[in-house]
This record gives sequence, C-alpha cells and structure tokens, in this order.
Amino acid sequence: MGMVGGGRGAFIGGVHRMAAAIDGQIELVCGAFSSSAEKSKLSGKDLYLPEERVYGSYEEMIMKEKELPEDVRMDFISIVTPNHMHYGPAKMALENGFHVVCDKPLSFDMDEAIDLVKIVNDTGLIFALTHNYTGYPMVKQAKMMVSNGDIGKVRRVVVEYPQGWLSTKLEDSDSKQASWRTDPKRSGAAGAMGDIGTHAENLAEYITDLKIEYLCADLHAHIEGRQLDDDGSVLLRFENGARGVLYASQISAGEENALAIRVYGTKAGLEWHQMEPNTLVVKHLDKPMEVMRTGVGDLYEAATAHTRIPAGHPEGYLEAFGNIYRNFAKCVQARLAGEEVDAVYKDFPTVEDGLRGMQFIEAVVASSSSDEKWYKM
Amino acid sequence: MGMVGGGRGAFIGGVHRMAAAIDGQIELVCGAFSSSAEKSKLSGKDLYLPEERVYGSYEEMIMKEKELPEDVRMDFISIVTPNHMHYGPAKMALENGFHVVCDKPLSFDMDEAIDLVKIVNDTGLIFALTHNYTGYPMVKQAKMMVSNGDIGKVRRVVVEYPQGWLSTKLEDSDSKQASWRTDPKRSGAAGAMGDIGTHAENLAEYITDLKIEYLCADLHAHIEGRQLDDDGSVLLRFENGARGVLYASQISAGEENALAIRVYGTKAGLEWHQMEPNTLVVKHLDKPMEVMRTGVGDLYEAATAHTRIPAGHPEGYLEAFGNIYRNFAKCVQARLAGEEVDAVYKDFPTVEDGLRGMQFIEAVVASSSSDEKWYKM
Amino acid sequence: MGMVGGGRGAFIGGVHRMAAAIDGQIELVCGAFSSSAEKSKLSGKDLYLPEERVYGSYEEMIMKEKELPEDVRMDFISIVTPNHMHYGPAKMALENGFHVVCDKPLSFDMDEAIDLVKIVNDTGLIFALTHNYTGYPMVKQAKMMVSNGDIGKVRRVVVEYPQGWLSTKLEDSDSKQASWRTDPKRSGAAGAMGDIGTHAENLAEYITDLKIEYLCADLHAHIEGRQLDDDGSVLLRFENGARGVLYASQISAGEENALAIRVYGTKAGLEWHQMEPNTLVVKHLDKPMEVMRTGVGDLYEAATAHTRIPAGHPEGYLEAFGNIYRNFAKCVQARLAGEEVDAVYKDFPTVEDGLRGMQFIEAVVASSSSDEKWYKM
Amino acid sequence: MGMVGGGRGAFIGGVHRMAAAIDGQIELVCGAFSSSAEKSKLSGKDLYLPEERVYGSYEEMIMKEKELPEDVRMDFISIVTPNHMHYGPAKMALENGFHVVCDKPLSFDMDEAIDLVKIVNDTGLIFALTHNYTGYPMVKQAKMMVSNGDIGKVRRVVVEYPQGWLSTKLEDSDSKQASWRTDPKRSGAAGAMGDIGTHAENLAEYITDLKIEYLCADLHAHIEGRQLDDDGSVLLRFENGARGVLYASQISAGEENALAIRVYGTKAGLEWHQMEPNTLVVKHLDKPMEVMRTGVGDLYEAATAHTRIPAGHPEGYLEAFGNIYRNFAKCVQARLAGEEVDAVYKDFPTVEDGLRGMQFIEAVVASSSSDEKWYKM
Repeated sequence: MGMVGGGRGAFIGGVHRMAAAIDGQIELVCGAFSSSAEKSKLSGKDLYLPEERVYGSYEEMIMKEKELPEDVRMDFISIVTPNHMHYGPAKMALENGFHVVCDKPLSFDMDEAIDLVKIVNDTGLIFALTHNYTGYPMVKQAKMMVSNGDIGKVRRVVVEYPQGWLSTKLEDSDSKQASWRTDPKRSGAAGAMGDIGTHAENLAEYITDLKIEYLCADLHAHIEGRQLDDDGSVLLRFENGARGVLYASQISAGEENALAIRVYGTKAGLEWHQMEPNTLVVKHLDKPMEVMRTGVGDLYEAATAHTRIPAGHPEGYLEAFGNIYRNFAKCVQARLAGEEVDAVYKDFPTVEDGLRGMQFIEAVVASSSSDEKWYKM
Repeated sequence: MGMVGGGRGAFIGGVHRMAAAIDGQIELVCGAFSSSAEKSKLSGKDLYLPEERVYGSYEEMIMKEKELPEDVRMDFISIVTPNHMHYGPAKMALENGFHVVCDKPLSFDMDEAIDLVKIVNDTGLIFALTHNYTGYPMVKQAKMMVSNGDIGKVRRVVVEYPQGWLSTKLEDSDSKQASWRTDPKRSGAAGAMGDIGTHAENLAEYITDLKIEYLCADLHAHIEGRQLDDDGSVLLRFENGARGVLYASQISAGEENALAIRVYGTKAGLEWHQMEPNTLVVKHLDKPMEVMRTGVGDLYEAATAHTRIPAGHPEGYLEAFGNIYRNFAKCVQARLAGEEVDAVYKDFPTVEDGLRGMQFIEAVVASSSSDEKWYKM
Repeated sequence: MGMVGGGRGAFIGGVHRMAAAIDGQIELVCGAFSSSAEKSKLSGKDLYLPEERVYGSYEEMIMKEKELPEDVRMDFISIVTPNHMHYGPAKMALENGFHVVCDKPLSFDMDEAIDLVKIVNDTGLIFALTHNYTGYPMVKQAKMMVSNGDIGKVRRVVVEYPQGWLSTKLEDSDSKQASWRTDPKRSGAAGAMGDIGTHAENLAEYITDLKIEYLCADLHAHIEGRQLDDDGSVLLRFENGARGVLYASQISAGEENALAIRVYGTKAGLEWHQMEPNTLVVKHLDKPMEVMRTGVGDLYEAATAHTRIPAGHPEGYLEAFGNIYRNFAKCVQARLAGEEVDAVYKDFPTVEDGLRGMQFIEAVVASSSSDEKWYKM
Repeated sequence: MGMVGGGRGAFIGGVHRMAAAIDGQIELVCGAFSSSAEKSKLSGKDLYLPEERVYGSYEEMIMKEKELPEDVRMDFISIVTPNHMHYGPAKMALENGFHVVCDKPLSFDMDEAIDLVKIVNDTGLIFALTHNYTGYPMVKQAKMMVSNGDIGKVRRVVVEYPQGWLSTKLEDSDSKQASWRTDPKRSGAAGAMGDIGTHAENLAEYITDLKIEYLCADLHAHIEGRQLDDDGSVLLRFENGARGVLYASQISAGEENALAIRVYGTKAGLEWHQMEPNTLVVKHLDKPMEVMRTGVGDLYEAATAHTRIPAGHPEGYLEAFGNIYRNFAKCVQARLAGEEVDAVYKDFPTVEDGLRGMQFIEAVVASSSSDEKWYKM
C-alpha cells in the first residue's frame, strides 16, 4: 500500500493505516503524505518507512513505484486527502495500473465522479470507497435479512446522522478538520450532507438494496458566515414505494457520531446504531423483539465472515473499517494470483457507490434551493 | 366527574378513569358510557355507580345533572369518545355551565375547533385537552430548561412517534380501536397524523415554546384500501428559524408507542423517550452528558410538583395522565372556592392547544397533496 | 379500607392510597393516621374523610368500625406504620374479623411473625403483605417461565438492591424516613437488609419458587455511629443446589432504587430491572436474546391479567403496587359474595411470605456476626 | 515479536497478533506456534513469515533468535499458550535476555509465579501480562478518578464476570478452548475463577488501588463431571475497610462476556461495562449522573493517551488489548534507545499483577473448601 495524504495532524490517514494493518494482510510500503515534501518525509519517518519510499507528491510516487520490481512496488494506493484531492491521484493511479482505495465522498463534483467510473471500468482495476459503516458485521446481517425477505417488503426507512462538533464556528480556530470540511473549494457542493449525509444514504441503500427515487431536502447553515450546510433533513421515496426520512447534522449539540438506521418491513423492523455497532434489534409484529449480537447464534455468513473475535468482545470502528481493507486485499491478492475470491469477501463499496453518493449530494443541494417539492434522483 | 363514552370494550375511557382516580381528588359520579342506553347501564354497574346516575345519552346526562343540587351534581364532564363525537358533548356541557376534559384531537374538523375555542372563551369555563405526554415530570423539566435558556437558542428539533399496530389491516378484524381510527367519518381528515402526529406536534411546541411556521409533509397509507394515512414524515421550520423533522407512523413494524423528542440548542441538546419517561438526557458541547431522572437532584419545580414518589420508583403513563386531571381538578376546586391556584398547577393543555392540533392536521394533509414545497401553518 | 398510619409527612401511606385507588375497587372510608389524634384529624381532612371516621388510635378505629353496619364499616385495614407498629393493629384487626393489608417486613421480630401466622391461620382471614415488586407483570412472566421450565433447571441467581440515599448520616437531619429505618427500636434487627434485602429475598424466592437453604452474610454499617447495617452481601445456596448472590445497600452512592434480578437456568437466563419494569430480557444459549415487554405478544396470563394499558404505555411502581391491592380486593369481594376468585388473582404475598422475610433477617444478622461460613435458613 | 503458541485453531494468539499490529509499532518476525513442528510451519506460512523464522519449539526459537544480529532478532516473545505452558518459555526468554508479553493468568501455580517474579526482578527485563481489560480508556479514567479522590473514599465494590459458554459440557465436543480451560492439568487449580475471575480481581484492584484483604468464596462446578469450577461468588473485604462482591461464572446462560464493575465512594459511584466499554457512568449523591464517554470532554490524560479515534467511533476489545502492546512496545523502544518513557505509557499489568492473580486463585480455592468464613489473602 502507498498512501496519498494522511501526514502529521491528519485524522483519517491514521484510521486507514490502522484499519489496513489490523489483519496482517497489508503493508504500508510508501507514501506521499503531504503536499509539502518535507512534511511528507517527517511523516514517513514516523511510520518507519525507508526514506526513498517517501515521496513529495503522488505523481512522483506513482511514477517511481511503477518502475520498481513487481514484488517490491506498492500494489495499490490509498487516498486519504480532502475531497478536492481525490480525483487526481485516483485517475493517475488507475491509468498506471494501480488498484485504488479512496476515502469518501468519491470526488469534488459529478464530472470527476463520472470520469472515475469510466476509468475504473476501462482499466478493470479494483476500486474501493471507504464507506466504512457497511463494514460492520451487524450491518451486513441487516442487509442479508432484508434481501432474504426476513422482514418482508420494506415500507419505511429512517436514517439519521447527528453530530455536534460544528455547533460553534470551529473553522475559525486552527482545526484542520473543520477548516476543509466547511470550505466549498475543498469539500464540494455540500457540507454535512457531503461529509456524513452520504454515509447515511449509502447505508440506507446498502441495507435495503433499494434506490432513493425522489427526495425533498431542506439544508441549512445555522452558523453565521458558514458557507456550507451544517444541518439538513430529507424526505425520501424509494423505488419500491417505501417512504422515509434521512437527516444529517453537525450542529446537534452534544451528539458524537450517532449514525443510526431503522428499516420497517411488512413483517418486522430492524434497528442499528453505529455507536453500539454489535447490536441489531429485530422488532416483530406479535412477539418479543430479538437482539442480535455480533458472534451470537446463527447469523448470516456475511456477518460471521466479518467478525474477528468471540461474542461479547466488542469490535469497533477500526475493525469495520478494516473489513473493507481486508476484503479489498483479498480481491487484489486473488487478482494477482489469478484466483477467484469467495463471494462473501467481494463486498465493499465501489466506484459506483461513490457516483451514487455524488448524485445524492447534487440532488439534496438542488432540492434544498428549489420550491418544487420532489426532486427525482 | 361525569363521563361521556368509555363503556365496555373501550380503551381510553378506562385510562381516564384510572388517571382521575389516582390522586383521590376526583370522583366519578355519573356517565353516559355508550350510545346504547343498555350498554351504558352495564358499564355504570361495572363502575359501582347508582343506576339513576347512568344515562342513555350525554344530552340526558347534562340536562339531568344540571338539575341536581350543586354539591351532588357532577362538576365537569370527561369526553372519551371518538373524534367525531367530541364537539357535541363539549359544546353542550360548556353551554350548560360544566367544565370539560376532552380527549385529543380536539374535534373532527377545524370549524368545530374554532367554535369550541369561542365557546370556552365566552363561558370562561375550564377546558383541558388530554395531550397527556406533557404531563410527565421530565417533559416539564425539558420545557423549563429551554425557557430558562439552559440549552441556548433552539436550532433543531426531531420528534418522532412510531407505532406498529396498524402494520396489517386490523380494521378488517373486530378491533374497535382500529376501526374508528382509520375511518375518515369518525377520525377526521388524518389517520396517524391526527391520532399521534398531533401528540408529536404538541410535545414539540410545548417543550420549545416555538410555533411551527412552515411545514412540508409526505403522508401515505401503506395498506391497500386504507383510507387515511398510516405513516407520514414532515419537514419543519419553526418561527425562530429552527429546523426539524416530525414523523408519525403506525406501520413501523414492532414499535410499541415510541414517542421521542430531541431538541438541540446552541449550548446543549435534550433527549426524551416516552417509553423511558423518567429519564431526560442532556448533551453538552464539551463535557459529559447528564442523565436527569425524575426525583433526582435539583430539578425545576414544574418537574417536582408533578412527581408522586421517590426517585427510582418508576412513574408511568397513568401518572402523567393523572397530572393533567390533578391540575385540572385543582383549577376547578379553586374556581369553586373562589381561590387562586398556584401557577405550577395551571399547566395543562387547553382548547387553544386543541385548535393548534387541528391546524396541524389541516396543514399536513394539505401539504401532502400539494406540489409546492412549503405550507405556511 | 381503613388505614393505620400514613398521616402527613409519611411516604408509604400515600403510596398505599394511590395504589388502592387506581382501579376503582377500593374506597378509603376511615383511618387512624397518626398516634397524635390531632394530626390524625388533619390527615383525615386532607383525604376528604368525614370527621367521625377519623380515629385517634387503631384500637379505637377497630372497635368503632366493628359496631358499624356491615355495608358501612371498613372491610379491611391497611397498616403503613414503621415495623415495630405492624403487629399490634394486625393482631387486633384479625381478632376482630377484619382482613389485613400490611406493609413489609411483616413485624419487628420473629416472635411477632410466628404469632401473626398463627392468628391468620386460626381466623381464616385474608392477609396481604405488600412486597409490591412481585406485582409487576414482567416479574409474574418471569415466575411463570421458570415454573413452566422455559429456562430449564435454575442454577444461579443474582439479586441486588442498591440504593444511595443513606450515603450520609441522614438520620441526623429531620428525615422521618431515615430516622426510623436506622433505629433498631423501630426497625428491628436489620437496617438495609430488613428494609430492602427482604424485597430481594422475596423476589428471588417468588420467581424461582426455590427456598434459600444456606446463606453466608457480611453486613456492615459504613457510617460511623449508625446502629444498623446500611450495606450487606450474602452468598446463597438454594434447596435445589442453585447458587447465588444477594446484596442490599443503602450507601451505594448515586443509586436510586435499583432492584434487579438475574436467574440462570440450564436452558436460558432471565434479567429484570425494577427501574425499567416493563422489560424482561431472556438470554438464550445459542440464539439472539429476546426482549419481552409488558403487553407485547403472547405472554403468560399471569402477566397479561396484571397489565392495564397497551404496550409502550409504561406502567410503573404504583400500578404494580396496585396489583396487590386489586388482587386482595378481588379475594375479599369474593369472600363477601361467597364466590371463588379466579386463580390468577390469588397471587399476592401472604403472611407466610412475611414470616419467610423475618427468617431471612434473622439469618443474615446471625450469619454476619458468626465465624462459621454457612448458616442454615 | 516472536510468538509462542497461537497456531491454527487457537483463539487468543490471533487476538495478540491483531492487538500488536494495530499501531504499526510491532512486527511479528518469528514464532513457535505449535508443539507440532509441522503445524507451526503451516501457521507461519499463514502469517507470511519466512520459513527459517518459524520454529518447532520455543526453546529452538529462543536459542536461534539469540544468535541473530540485534537489528534482526526478535526483541521480545509473546506467550499465548494454555496456562501450564507459560512458565517454561517465560523463564527461558528472560534468562536469555528477551522481554516478555504473557497471557494471563501468569502461571500454572504459585511456585511458578513466585519464581517468575524473582527472574524478572533479577534480569530487570520488561514483562507485561495481558490483563487486557485495564487497557480501555474509560477504565483508566475510572482509576484516575478514584486515585484523585473524585468519588471520595471507596466503600463498596461490585465486580462481576458472567459468561454462558460453558453452560453445557462443551469440553466433550472438539472445542479446544473448552477442553484446556476445564482441565486441571492445563488450567491449574481453578476454572472460571482462574480464567475470568482473575480479570475481575485485577480490574477491581487496578481501579481502586486497594488490595483485597479477606475473602469468602463459594465455587462450584454445575456440570456433572466437570473437574474445575464453572461458577463462583466471593465476598470481599478490602484493606481500607471497603466491602464488596466478586463473581465469575461460565454457566450464566446467554451471557456473552459481561465483565462489569461498580465502585461506590463516599461522594459518588462509578459503573463500567466491558460490553459497552466507551461509557463510564458517574453517579452523584445529589445531582444528575454523568455519562463519560471515550473522547468526550476533559478526561484524564490516562484516558486520552489511550484513545485513537474521535468520540463516537467505538473502540473495542482489540484496541484496549493493543494499548497494552503499545505501552509495552514504547517501554522496550525506550529501553533500547536508552531513553525514559512518558509516565502515562508505563501503565500495563506486570509480573506482580500476575502473582497477585495467582494468590487470588489460591485464596478462592482454599476458601471455597473451608468451613471458616474469612480467608486472609
């Protein structure tokens, strides 16, 4: 793995490294950790990389790695930069034969997204987008239950993602995270909706296997002077007639990272909370609800294959994130070995999921400023 | 107290009787429990009433009771009939000098509601509407915290009321409850939104002391052949600029009676769940959240004055309902005695709250069938 | 109902009155509310009783009521005094033909308890002891599940009752409650163990239908100068070989009234918490745990017959307490009418349960001061 | 790191590898994964180790690694074998200059434990015992709160560790885990008490910084034919006069891994549950309880220094386990570099903690079979 971004002071770069390391399948071999060559060197040193594999730019990294022997050079790059810096390294890596892991949302805008889908399809390379919340075992259990008909036809979806960390104008402090995420030049057309709303959208469509068809959005920046939405609510209509609500907020004072989803079918309902990720509640029409737990009882293989330790030993965010890396690595290994990978491991978010997220951003932003009620997505 | 409706087989009548009895301030002295005189007699016997105080109609009850000596006759009537039967007895009781407790929503339609407001104002009699959820101590604590500025300016409100009991076409069975609640001739213009959406609306406006100014609704009947909405979601804009979401659903499979509200201000957030009513969570920006509990520590008087037993002895739905009756009774007693009642006890939902609920029903029904995004309420 | 004790400033008297009133089956007709005749009068007035039915002593009440016509006089007395004042009124009431409801623990000491058992047996009158926690529907569900073999043979019981209200020397303030409960002259041989440990003992034996055979106790008063235990832990061995732990504490800082029980059998485990009384968790060996809820699904009749309102409308402490009064009232009514009462309503704690509680107090106090490990109960 | 044990089919070996890998500070360079040389080779291949670094025995590993150049050879060994196989490799590694990480309990018996303490002290090498639950940030927060006096003087401790996985005679199946843990020849004198009771003991003494002085235990094997305890309860008296209860059970049907602790002081109480490890509840005498959360607000440095990701992104068992490896690694790195490590990182369980655990095992086993009440530990 070669990393683009994620130098000292970054947040998500460290997450990617821990997630990639946890299963002993992936080794960080090089990086271009910062747009400053010097900072990149320092970060490389922190990470015990040899100096010659720490590059001053992603362009340099891709070109130099390409020339290394196959068993030495990186197999893929991992892009952990702000949104406006995804497209460049992704495109160049793909065009030079490297598989790609990319943080979400896929790109700065729709044009970039459409182009990346095309390049991935043209090159046939493997592309994973880190919508990490779908890596949790109980999210996979939920998806399987829906697709298997365990809850009947889906009628209602409620997906919410409240955070409180932007309740004050944090971007005026020295918070690197707040700064780029509230900046339309680096973040794109949406703020909270792009940053976390896309996770909610992805989670809802992943679990239900239903597309949002129409939506009606109300986005708002509650903090004076903030240029992008920090809060928004969306009415949803799914392709099968199901209805629902999605909201994402970064001014919900005191909330940590409270992504949650409820899916109601004709036979039962499901409820999952990211902050207690090893629990999936199944609510029945006429009998006691069941509390499914990671590692307990007879779960779908999709859940058990993404579980590392016995029941009651909580697996968390890094493990779910690691499942995306692990599955991606298995697919890359299989490709290198000319083998077929087990279907259960082919499950990670793709460039198409990334495009879907960009469509969602475009839709909610357009809907929010429109007087028409329904926007077709 | 004389009761209208609530005979054998009814649900809410028994609730009203238990709620009225709990504090030993109110005695059931007469009733017109059913439109069938015979059924009314049987119900009266169940309730140990003397035969002569069990009436065949509310008209008979009001006229006959009026002629009894002041210290014998009922002081007020309690109306626990389906929605289309609220207006008649309420109007007649008021016009004949009796105070009124009425179940929610206030009436069958707006015209009736407007008329009742006028009659109450004209007669100066006391009218309580049983939006019972505002009777919980921790709801009162939440209201006081907001009005006292403890959470800062309100920015966001999420209020939800999912139930699952109408997930099947229960009205085709012999369920009396399902039958009238899904019948536009008895329930009014809305189904779930009228039955429980109005509770959500009332709770949100009660706690925040803010009016919903604009809304955008999507109501739906998921069950084929059902004539009224059984599920709906609403985007909210409050008068102070706060945004939010309200939803009410009776097809959320497996949900019991999961009314819940979250209110986020500039300084903190509040969260309350009706199914764990003695807990109020306060989420702060930069310190641990606090879990306020009925009876624990230094709460507002509005909370403590509506608490009967020490901390850790759970008070429930009937006690909250009883708080409305208790406060109403205190106001009636004071009126009879020519005294002033303590301000803390003047707190119960009024005919104006009932009118507000009817406006809400009108608004969500109109909005739902419109292509325009925002409906001014 | 005639009440002994429970005048102004008392706690449990009001609870008994609300619990008795809630179902409209019991009317308070007289009382001897205080050892001061004047205070008793004032309390009677608060309760809207006619002056002539408010007595200066229980002796007076019993003798005078006895002379009233059958359809006027009280049917039973309710004793809500401190422990040392249970025996006198209970004995006299029984000997004069009145049924009795008595607060727990049964008496001041074992001699009184043994005597009361004898008198109840001799008179054949109905005697209910308000171990109110067994009145909760989900406790009854638990009992039925155990007796029906749903969890297999019981192996392990953990029952705990932590409170924090005596963490400071409250008895030095003007707290009436703290004062008598920490006073060996009024409370008896034990403090926390008598006050709440007996509830834990009763709950464990009620649910499991197993007797504690041996115990090993460690009681302690953590507050300097306090004369009775405020904290204690007990190892348990049940008659069937099951093992367990019981503890009761009133110095568990910050705890409200956190009675809880877990029962583990060969096939499943049960968990119930008094502060969330409408939930019973069933833990299975190899499948998801189930969350049983008051009013949801197919529960045992013992649970449904003690439930008043639909699922999701929380029933609390007063309703559970009321179930004891309601069942007692049904038995008294049936006795008066010469009828047989339905078996499901015969379920309330008896004088024998009271004797058992006194044996428990005797056992833990003796064990705690002994060097021998096991005390046979 | 060189690993002893943890080959195919083992559980805890994989945990150690993931925990060691997560922070990118430790590299697995060699191993003796099984007593079968062939199995060891296969396991080494799974782990991408070069063949020459995969050994047939720990003796071979230690001797061969010792001869490798300093910058190539392992810096320490990690022992993940059953209890009876800890002493041998630990002693030999220490005597040959290698630092040691060892799974708990420390050894098969007291003699081995005492000897290991002596060898560690004599060699001055670094020894970490993986009582991993003390690696959680909120456990460290709890410890700091106690030592800082935030809850006042400790009066009461309740620590419990229920599991249900040995509710049936699993050792008769092919479960490797059940087999050795119930076998006195491999597990030692205690079953559940050795396996998980020692975790409970360690957690209680770690958080309170108090030693258990006296105990009274009742251990039992509920499954016919099982040779070691699968369930036990212990009364505790701490050196400062605090009282408490500890229990450990592996026949608590349906429990996963429910280690939990409550500590009550004169000013407040603390509650922590391993299955929701990012939450620490603080219960106050007269104000709302606080819910401390990993990453939220102003926690002690001991907590924040052991947290990897922002609030609301759940960290789990592996991360806590990883904290022990990370701290151990920092100490080894500092030793190699001749530097001093920051005090906050010196916090991991030591060989003395291991000795303490063995004393606990000895004490509960002796107490359980004794008729005397108190055993001095």
